[in-house]
Amino acid sequence: MDTIHHIAIQVDNIPDTLEWYKNQYDVKVVYADETWALIQFSNVALALVLPNQHPPHFAITSNHAERYGPLKTHRDGTASVYIQDPAGNNIEMIRLPK
Amino acid sequence: MDTIHHIAIQVDNIPDTLEWYKNQYDVKVVYADETWALIQFSNVALALVLPNQHPPHFAITSNHAERYGPLKTHRDGTASVYIQDPAGNNIEMIRLPK
Repeated sequence: MDTIHHIAIQVDNIPDTLEWYKNQYDVKVVYADETWALIQFSNVALALVLPNQHPPHFAITSNHAERYGPLKTHRDGTASVYIQDPAGNNIEMIRLPK
Repeated sequence: MDTIHHIAIQVDNIPDTLEWYKNQYDVKVVYADETWALIQFSNVALALVLPNQHPPHFAITSNHAERYGPLKTHRDGTASVYIQDPAGNNIEMIRLPK
């Protein structure tokens, strides 16, 4: 079965919101700076993003993400492209580093 | 660590959108009718909901969901309450049946 790599929600203040999630839940912070954060739950990751940088979305892992369009390569070695479902929900098709 | 039970996205037409997800991805349909659907990925479930019935949200499993407010019991034995993070994102705190 396919895997959801992360969920991304928009927040205005990354550090403050991250602090709230750390206080509320048993999670591990994978990455955090002023522009985004990645919070690991037991089964999937939650990304906090700024409204002007990324849409709210969820990401699905794919070894063939390029079939969905030209991939943008990220600093962590992943590469991805955004698509939309018929209702307009944003899905990031993401290829993990080998 | 805490677990994300499902992600819920709003769609206008449940059957049509469900068909799209089934065609695009390797998933298992757990439940579907005209008013909502639950799609299982390998690690987490994706719920399709109607805009007038549920907000877009994600659900976090908790044995102590009642600490977050009065729980609403659902037909499948789960019970839950909606809260919001400081940025206004909707989180469903959900207690699973024993």
